[in-house]
Amino acid sequence: MTALETILQHKTIRKFKSDAIPEDILNSILEAGSRAATTGNMQVYSIIVTREQNIKNQLLPLHFGQKMIVEAPVVLTFCADFNRFIHWCNLRNANPGYDNFLSFMTAAIDALLAAQNCVVAAEHFGLGTVYLGTTTYTANKIIDVLKLPKGVVPITTVVIGYPDETPPLTDRLPMRAVVHYETYNAFDDSTINNLYSEKENSDEYKKFVTDSNVDNLAQVFTQKRYTKADNVAFSKVFLEVLQKQGFMNND
Amino acid sequence: MTALETILQHKTIRKFKSDAIPEDILNSILEAGSRAATTGNMQVYSIIVTREQNIKNQLLPLHFGQKMIVEAPVVLTFCADFNRFIHWCNLRNANPGYDNFLSFMTAAIDALLAAQNCVVAAEHFGLGTVYLGTTTYTANKIIDVLKLPKGVVPITTVVIGYPDETPPLTDRLPMRAVVHYETYNAFDDSTINNLYSEKENSDEYKKFVTDSNVDNLAQVFTQKRYTKADNVAFSKVFLEVLQKQGFMNND
Repeated sequence: MTALETILQHKTIRKFKSDAIPEDILNSILEAGSRAATTGNMQVYSIIVTREQNIKNQLLPLHFGQKMIVEAPVVLTFCADFNRFIHWCNLRNANPGYDNFLSFMTAAIDALLAAQNCVVAAEHFGLGTVYLGTTTYTANKIIDVLKLPKGVVPITTVVIGYPDETPPLTDRLPMRAVVHYETYNAFDDSTINNLYSEKENSDEYKKFVTDSNVDNLAQVFTQKRYTKADNVAFSKVFLEVLQKQGFMNND
Repeated sequence: MTALETILQHKTIRKFKSDAIPEDILNSILEAGSRAATTGNMQVYSIIVTREQNIKNQLLPLHFGQKMIVEAPVVLTFCADFNRFIHWCNLRNANPGYDNFLSFMTAAIDALLAAQNCVVAAEHFGLGTVYLGTTTYTANKIIDVLKLPKGVVPITTVVIGYPDETPPLTDRLPMRAVVHYETYNAFDDSTINNLYSEKENSDEYKKFVTDSNVDNLAQVFTQKRYTKADNVAFSKVFLEVLQKQGFMNND
């Protein structure tokens, strides 16, 4: 299967078999991650591979009990990581200026490009994957469990294993919702209505609205799934994490 | 070629032919981007496709004169974008709580996973790519050129075209520098020396040190390429961008 075919068939998997991932396949997936572009080839990211049940059990509540964490064989936590690079600079009489927000962004970008390469490589091997957005919500506690030192911040988590379900392709908005030509084309109200109409009229999402006991699909997001109160609370936690891990010395 | 082969052969390309990318190939690349996982399927990112010479000329100084911007046929700017989603919420009597830092991170993650899918898909078609880290440095001015409204922040830029050079694979640190098992394994000094020794002893990097007129490779980074002064200045700009684009209401 070509790279394009693998990418176009991507599905998020939430039910996994417990079968282990052979060591050579896991190593290929990690190597694929390491081939992603990185800023100035500094490689300012790290991948924490978790397979021990004991550590997965500690991660489980930090990912809000999403049981893929303990059911699938491998959990990869992708981290922005300037610790190694700063350590090297310090050993070479080089003054590292990487304790600021821009450096955090640089390192987060490295981590995320590596993560997506690992996902595509995993799917190449017939494995299934799911990203856990909860990583940024509870980064402070993940830091404790994974013993992440200063300069290291968890950005996203990918659970990998052999799929035990075959979901359909996820729906997407029409491409014109996402792609703008030359400059940004701000949408008027009727275009927004049009872009979201297929999604809003699908049976799957209508059931979602009914089950959530709200008026419409947008309210499922704002009142149930990604509320202002949660986002504000998680923002505070994450900004504190950046401070504590040494990325907010911006003067 | 399989996805794994495509990924393992990735090389950053900096010299491009001026040949246009056929419309169907560009569309496939963009569709590949749209198949990447996104948080809650909110698709809170956008891709700005720039092909007009006039706009590329405006982007050129913002990417520090890296001439791939004007030489290659296509420039893709990947943006964190909650504008569309917030607009939709507002039309549905749903109260969007997405003007905070956590939401920025969510949207930036969406943008970067899509970017890496586009890069892999482009390479599947025999195209070459280069990421421009300058995007975060001058985000304030890129916002003006690309007319990005509130809720939209440029995160990275990918230049795509047919390669006019065949560079070798980029060197990487040994995998044990990047991958940690179970928990983070902080390195001692001698391990850091060991991890960086191959790089420091390569002829390519030795020339880099001599040409930069510094003592060692780490100083090339700290004194020439990614200095503290630059990082601090860019951090201020980027944090101001987050404020201005409406992502710093964290109370």
